[in-house]
Amino acid sequence: MLEPKVKSEGLSVRADELLGLSPELINSVRDSLLEKNQTRTRMIVASLRASEFADLLQLLSPNFRRRLIECIGSDFDPQVLAELEGDIQEEISELLGPLSLANMIIRLDIDDALELIITLRKDRQWEILKQLPSELRNLVEEGLAFPKDSAGRLMGREFVAVPSFWTVEDTIKFLRAADNLPNEFYEVFIVNPHHRPIGKVSLSNILRNEKPTKISSIMLSEIVTVPAIMDQEEVAFVFSQKDLVSVPVVDQSLRLIGVITVDDVLDVIQEEAEEDIMRLGGVKSDDLYSAALQTGRSRFSWLFLNLITAIVVSIVIGIFEATLEQIVMLAVLMPIVASMGGNAGTQTMTVAVRALATKELSDTNAMRVMGKEFLVGIYNGILFASLVGGVAWFWTNSLKIGGVMAGAMMITLIMAALSGMIIPLFLQRAGIDPAIASGVVLTTITDIIAFGVFLGFATLLLL
Amino acid sequence: MLEPKVKSEGLSVRADELLGLSPELINSVRDSLLEKNQTRTRMIVASLRASEFADLLQLLSPNFRRRLIECIGSDFDPQVLAELEGDIQEEISELLGPLSLANMIIRLDIDDALELIITLRKDRQWEILKQLPSELRNLVEEGLAFPKDSAGRLMGREFVAVPSFWTVEDTIKFLRAADNLPNEFYEVFIVNPHHRPIGKVSLSNILRNEKPTKISSIMLSEIVTVPAIMDQEEVAFVFSQKDLVSVPVVDQSLRLIGVITVDDVLDVIQEEAEEDIMRLGGVKSDDLYSAALQTGRSRFSWLFLNLITAIVVSIVIGIFEATLEQIVMLAVLMPIVASMGGNAGTQTMTVAVRALATKELSDTNAMRVMGKEFLVGIYNGILFASLVGGVAWFWTNSLKIGGVMAGAMMITLIMAALSGMIIPLFLQRAGIDPAIASGVVLTTITDIIAFGVFLGFATLLLL
Repeated sequence: MLEPKVKSEGLSVRADELLGLSPELINSVRDSLLEKNQTRTRMIVASLRASEFADLLQLLSPNFRRRLIECIGSDFDPQVLAELEGDIQEEISELLGPLSLANMIIRLDIDDALELIITLRKDRQWEILKQLPSELRNLVEEGLAFPKDSAGRLMGREFVAVPSFWTVEDTIKFLRAADNLPNEFYEVFIVNPHHRPIGKVSLSNILRNEKPTKISSIMLSEIVTVPAIMDQEEVAFVFSQKDLVSVPVVDQSLRLIGVITVDDVLDVIQEEAEEDIMRLGGVKSDDLYSAALQTGRSRFSWLFLNLITAIVVSIVIGIFEATLEQIVMLAVLMPIVASMGGNAGTQTMTVAVRALATKELSDTNAMRVMGKEFLVGIYNGILFASLVGGVAWFWTNSLKIGGVMAGAMMITLIMAALSGMIIPLFLQRAGIDPAIASGVVLTTITDIIAFGVFLGFATLLLL
Repeated sequence: MLEPKVKSEGLSVRADELLGLSPELINSVRDSLLEKNQTRTRMIVASLRASEFADLLQLLSPNFRRRLIECIGSDFDPQVLAELEGDIQEEISELLGPLSLANMIIRLDIDDALELIITLRKDRQWEILKQLPSELRNLVEEGLAFPKDSAGRLMGREFVAVPSFWTVEDTIKFLRAADNLPNEFYEVFIVNPHHRPIGKVSLSNILRNEKPTKISSIMLSEIVTVPAIMDQEEVAFVFSQKDLVSVPVVDQSLRLIGVITVDDVLDVIQEEAEEDIMRLGGVKSDDLYSAALQTGRSRFSWLFLNLITAIVVSIVIGIFEATLEQIVMLAVLMPIVASMGGNAGTQTMTVAVRALATKELSDTNAMRVMGKEFLVGIYNGILFASLVGGVAWFWTNSLKIGGVMAGAMMITLIMAALSGMIIPLFLQRAGIDPAIASGVVLTTITDIIAFGVFLGFATLLLL
């Protein structure tokens, strides 16, 4: 028996080998652009999906990017734009110009058009809206009226809604005849005469029931709906809590106005987690693709804030200048306490920031978690106080310096654990994103505690 | 006309208000547990889904947790166990005992049973496997044979596969008659006589086509399949790149053996992003729910590593003890340079670690990104060198100390930017997860550079 050949000895397990965008492809795109071989370039990229083409653009240098766009010309797929990160998107839409952008957008579905337009800069949005036919413009402006990152912006406008008195047969007939259905859908929603969603039936259920079956008898009537103004992060939370594939979006009168599907939510979850990671690290999420000057500027403000706090810490150390003058060894040892305090605090803070984002930390359990952090601080405080106390004693041959190190380490680790929990909770209450601000506040506090307690103890005990 | 009452004045926009698990519910569960009112407790929690019940258990203190489990008794839904984090899951399965756990698992679908068993500890898995009927045990053991976090572990074993010569009518008839179909499915896969997937049709397409239509004429034949041994992170990447709702999983002979659906991938994406954030912060992902002692122990190792590196840094400072003895002001100023270096390095590292995780940083663009980081380092280096140089000059009234600060800052910021990019890239190549190890390596290097360069310059220029 002849079997089709298996690709290689072992099976490939890296996703990129399955996908269109391989390193070889990138290299051959570069080569054919250098050769100015337009036909070959277009042939190579023809098989790429919008998201892959966007990745390709991001991986190329600005120069190659320009050449590729020029080569593709008016065949450029506007969906690619929506997939690009901030600065690169700017660059490409600049290259394309508002008129040809508008022409591309007209060819898109309404929700895709909206998705693309909202990712553009405000002034460019306006330029393009002007070029759109009035009907499409109205729909886009309606979408733009919903708050940023809301369910209203995320939802598709095309969906299937049927009345509850229909049968499976009615529904199938309707689906075969309708021409403005979404490309892909997984559920049919059932609405009452006020167009409010009262239930849903999955397509698999419709397929598996006999024709005369009433939709009302197979519909699931306990459904979750989300208001159009709900934040996308909350929508994602609903999806993962309820294992949904799609959710109906309702307006203020509870009327069905759109549907959010799981693939939109997949993107939201990735974006939000990305944002948290980036904010914890003090960078913006499109950092990788910004030009050096822009990146430098956006990182400057974060570093500047850190400089101010570092100077404050330095002033605290300055208070103990007289002590340092007499025992210089203290200057050698003091960064150890600060470094440990910073790290212990960061551990707690990471847990707190993440748990706040996933709603696992709330008023209900805050006190209990805080009590636990206190115990963790004591546990590691005792262990590390003995360790560094011993090391410092051995190193400096002074039991007193060892004692100062041990005492400072103990207090710093306990305070760091508590601060790492209190700061994010406090910032959240104050309406500030804990991911963006916790780190810098925390290290300032742990540094001040570490240096202050260490040098303070030293002044009291050693002079 | 009578309209149903809208819930409140404004529409609720917080997800938890839409879901079953509200703070009020948690409180009333606590109250009824205190009152030992079993009927009321069971009534309150009856409406919760498995994931919500798991959240409830995690929010309660161990004492309330035990009482709740005792109250629910054999009605405990085994799906809840799969939703719990490590330590709490341990605690609950301890409470339930292997025999009643096995009895619960028998009632589950095979893939749910597998999903639950693989989340349990190794020795407990074995205890439970012994209790299962042999047929189920074989299937579970088959699943356990796939690597941890692989597509084989993630996939469902139930799916719909039909031959390409069937019509829409054949397919619908088959779906109506079959009794071992998955609860929810979105696509029908088409297989050749060797049971290899050669295409797929979405349910919406089946519904919208007339009965005599050949499946082969409406199927999408360019499909992605993933091998069972592929890592779940790679599977998630394929899903988001290709906007899939389900993907066929194949064995080494490329035969269809299972299907992964988008809801499984949603969980994977959340898990993996969570893992990255937690690892960057030096904590384990179930940290929030572990007991204080366990948490203390798991954090200890990370802090211990940090202690070792802090001592190394301290030894570097010790080399310049003589310099510090003469100019104590240096000890006051030196943490500023180190703090800035640490922060600038973390910014770059965060971008690099995240971009490696999302495959946006690769050999193709590593050199270009590195060049950009060098420029960013120079940009902020010049700005902050002038700033701190000026501050130090003003503060110490010594132009030389200002110059030492400026020079050290310049070099530290450039080296920090480069290290923040090189370390994750190097760790990735060496097969070490950059998220877990980059931070501690980075701060050690930036600290050594900052203190070494600052005190080195000072020794050369000031003594």
